[in-house]
Amino acid sequence: MPGKARISKGMRSHSNGTALKPGASRHQNGAGHAFTVTEREAVYRAIFERRDVRRNFLPTPIPHHILMRVLTAAHHAGSVGFMQPWDFVVIRDRKTKQAVKDLFVDANAKAARRYTRRKGELYRRLKLEGIEEAPINLCVTCSRQRGGPHVLGRATVRDTDLYSTCCAIQNLWLAARAEGIGVGWVSILDHSALKRVLGVPKSVKVLAYLCLGYVSNFATQPDLETAGWRERIPLEHLVHYESWGNERKGKR
Amino acid sequence: MPGKARISKGMRSHSNGTALKPGASRHQNGAGHAFTVTEREAVYRAIFERRDVRRNFLPTPIPHHILMRVLTAAHHAGSVGFMQPWDFVVIRDRKTKQAVKDLFVDANAKAARRYTRRKGELYRRLKLEGIEEAPINLCVTCSRQRGGPHVLGRATVRDTDLYSTCCAIQNLWLAARAEGIGVGWVSILDHSALKRVLGVPKSVKVLAYLCLGYVSNFATQPDLETAGWRERIPLEHLVHYESWGNERKGKR
Repeated sequence: MPGKARISKGMRSHSNGTALKPGASRHQNGAGHAFTVTEREAVYRAIFERRDVRRNFLPTPIPHHILMRVLTAAHHAGSVGFMQPWDFVVIRDRKTKQAVKDLFVDANAKAARRYTRRKGELYRRLKLEGIEEAPINLCVTCSRQRGGPHVLGRATVRDTDLYSTCCAIQNLWLAARAEGIGVGWVSILDHSALKRVLGVPKSVKVLAYLCLGYVSNFATQPDLETAGWRERIPLEHLVHYESWGNERKGKR
Repeated sequence: MPGKARISKGMRSHSNGTALKPGASRHQNGAGHAFTVTEREAVYRAIFERRDVRRNFLPTPIPHHILMRVLTAAHHAGSVGFMQPWDFVVIRDRKTKQAVKDLFVDANAKAARRYTRRKGELYRRLKLEGIEEAPINLCVTCSRQRGGPHVLGRATVRDTDLYSTCCAIQNLWLAARAEGIGVGWVSILDHSALKRVLGVPKSVKVLAYLCLGYVSNFATQPDLETAGWRERIPLEHLVHYESWGNERKGKR
């Protein structure tokens, strides 16, 4: 599979790339604080094998201490002005999940109308959430007033609190992958309605609604890539040197 | 150090928590796709030892293939509708860094005025960027029109493209930590002015300006925690069960 091949190739280059020559001081080349090759490959494995999971959830409960580990990982993201603006609402109750699923069904019916013909047919065949199958649902929020009116680093870019919360979500996503737990981000939801379901205060922003659970299988590439919805863009098309649009590396 | 102690304690609980009992099937307990303990601890190590780096950058250049590895990690974040809205502008030119540093100095002088007395004195002593010392600066952007007008999953939550880009940044941050590369996110910058310096088109949004380099030392806790700017919030204060404000786990 192309996704698999690309990942393996990437992983191989990782092992070769920073192998130290015999006798070379790790400090001389600046990589004195690099992980061992094994550790580094584990980090890349989590990054490349993380998937947005909507199917194959198992009913196996996630033990509380493991949930706490992935939440601790989230909580150790950096945040603007050390604001730590996130909160986590853990949902296990079937009725709550059902209410959220209803919100999804509404929002998805509206979204489906945007696509016609082949794309419309394809859209309707996609599985875009695992709300009821996943043992745990998790709502991640951002409390925008936390830390008072003058949060360090936020005067220039107001939304950095949202950005920090997303970094926390990615930490959680990768930690979960290492634990063998699949995570799916459901964005096809009316967040105002979702806040009413969960009792989230008006001043708090919902960032993400995640479905967590052990899975029978992790896909080797994104579902939307497999379904032919959209292809991965070659990285070199996305890298610019010194200024926008300059695709050549090296001095200007 | 309290930060260090907390991390070690966390790491210990990771190793104990999912150790499988002899004879237990990995699949039975649902964790069949979990990493080995060593791999898992490497992922948590990256998460807990990642720092927002503003000091201790070494002049050692980052080899191109290693830069490409961390950018590949960024590019493997999930994105709404597989939109992959990010671009990366790699800056090595001293003059460009100088121009960006000038923007920082302006924005920081304005920001400092918000703090008075002890907090003002403390603010002025903080080192908040390593723009000129870091061998590589990286501007991460989000092209909001990529993927056309109807990006799957974005009809309900328009800003999910920004959220995806933040997830890509966190991937890069963790991959860099594994490589021994420090990353600092500089948010005290006027993004409109920054776009003019880098030639970023009007329709493209700047998400982050990052400083990358090998470092002589990774701090054991966030600089702002060490400086006494703000403390880490206990995780249990941030977790709600079933609905907002409910701090007890278990059934309602």
